[in-house]
Amino acid sequence: MTTAGGVFVVFEGGDGVGKTTQVDRLCAWLAKAGQDVLRTFEPGDTTVGAMIRRIVLDPATGEMSPRAEALLYAADKAQHIFAVVRPALQRGAVVVCDRYVDSMLAYQGAGRALELADLERVARWATEDLRPDLTVVLDAELSAGVHAKANKDRLESAGDGFHERTRQFFLQLAQRDPERYLVLDARASREEIAAEVTARVAPLLSPARHQERR
Amino acid sequence: MTTAGGVFVVFEGGDGVGKTTQVDRLCAWLAKAGQDVLRTFEPGDTTVGAMIRRIVLDPATGEMSPRAEALLYAADKAQHIFAVVRPALQRGAVVVCDRYVDSMLAYQGAGRALELADLERVARWATEDLRPDLTVVLDAELSAGVHAKANKDRLESAGDGFHERTRQFFLQLAQRDPERYLVLDARASREEIAAEVTARVAPLLSPARHQERR
Repeated sequence: MTTAGGVFVVFEGGDGVGKTTQVDRLCAWLAKAGQDVLRTFEPGDTTVGAMIRRIVLDPATGEMSPRAEALLYAADKAQHIFAVVRPALQRGAVVVCDRYVDSMLAYQGAGRALELADLERVARWATEDLRPDLTVVLDAELSAGVHAKANKDRLESAGDGFHERTRQFFLQLAQRDPERYLVLDARASREEIAAEVTARVAPLLSPARHQERR
Repeated sequence: MTTAGGVFVVFEGGDGVGKTTQVDRLCAWLAKAGQDVLRTFEPGDTTVGAMIRRIVLDPATGEMSPRAEALLYAADKAQHIFAVVRPALQRGAVVVCDRYVDSMLAYQGAGRALELADLERVARWATEDLRPDLTVVLDAELSAGVHAKANKDRLESAGDGFHERTRQFFLQLAQRDPERYLVLDARASREEIAAEVTARVAPLLSPARHQERR
C-alpha cells in the first residue's frame, strides 16, 4: 500500500523527548498552510486500540507472553491503518502520527527477546506495508523524559539499558534510509526543531502532488 | 516446540457439533485412567484472552480490520500457549483443548478475505509452532448447531456459506495429515464417538511415553 494521494509523517523517539510538542507545531503549520491534517498516534488511537492498550499496559494483566504482546500491538496497528490512517490518506490528507512501526520494532524487538525479522514481518503484514513518507526521530540521551515521569508503566519499568537500545535502534533505521528519515537533536530549541521539520515536510506538499489528489 | 513430556489433543468442528460433550467425556476417561488432565479452550482461556475475546465478539466494536481481528486471535493463542498449555505439557499432563490453530485458519482464512499462508505464518509464530498430537474433527452438515443457537455473535452472523467453507477446510486439513487427525461423523451417538476418540488417544499414553516424562 502506498500513501499516494496523501502524505504520511511519523514522529519517533523515547518518552519525554518532545514528540507531542513537535506534532502540535507541525499540525498547526500544516493547517495554516491550508492542508487537510489528521493528527493521530499509536498505540491506541481507535476504540479497539484503546482496549488493546489497556490490556498491554495494565500491571494487573500479569506476566504476558512477549509474542502475545507484540501481536496485540500489531492488531492495534492493523486497526489504526484500516480505520484511521488509510481513509485519511485516500482523501488526500496529511497524516501526522506520534509513533508507528519503528516503535513497535524498537520496543518489542530491540528491547526484548523476539527475533526482529519475525516482528517486522508481523508488523508489515498488519499495516499492509504502508511506509511513512517521512519519519522524524527526536534523539536524546537517556533520558530527561523517562526520569521525569512519575508513573512508570510496564514498558517504562524495563530499565535504562532498554531505553538506550531502543534509541540506538531508531538511529540505525534512520541511517539505513536517510531519504525517509530526519534525525534531530531533541536538546535543540523547539523553534529550531520545528523549522527543520517543516523544511523537510514542505517539499512533500509540492503543487504537483497537490494536483494529483484533486 | 514439541509436546514431548505431555500429550496435546484438540477438538475442532463447527458450533453445536458436540465438542463440549466429547471434551467432557475424554477428560473424564483420562482422569479415571489416572492421567494429569488439563481441560482448556480457545479463544479466551486466559485473563488476557478473555479481554481479547470481548473485543472481537462485541458488536459494539464496529467494523474491524480483518487483519486486526486475526492478530487478536493470534495474540490470544500466544498467551494461551505461554501461560496454560506449555506449562501443563511440560509437567507431563494431557491437555485437551476445545479449538486451536485450525479454527483460526478456518474462520479467518477460509471464511474471509485473508491469505491463508499469511495467517498460518502468524498463527505458527504465535504458538511457537506447537502442533497437537491428535486433532479430532467432529464433522456435521451445516448445521443443526448453528440454527439452534439463539444469540448469534459476529462470527455466526456471517451466513451458511461461511460455515460450509470452514467445514470443508477442516476436512482438507485432516485429509492431508491422517496420522494427526481423526474425523468423526458428529451424528453418531455420543458413546460411539467417545469410544473412537479414546481408542485413538490411548496409544498416545503408552507406558514408554509415560516413563519418559518421569
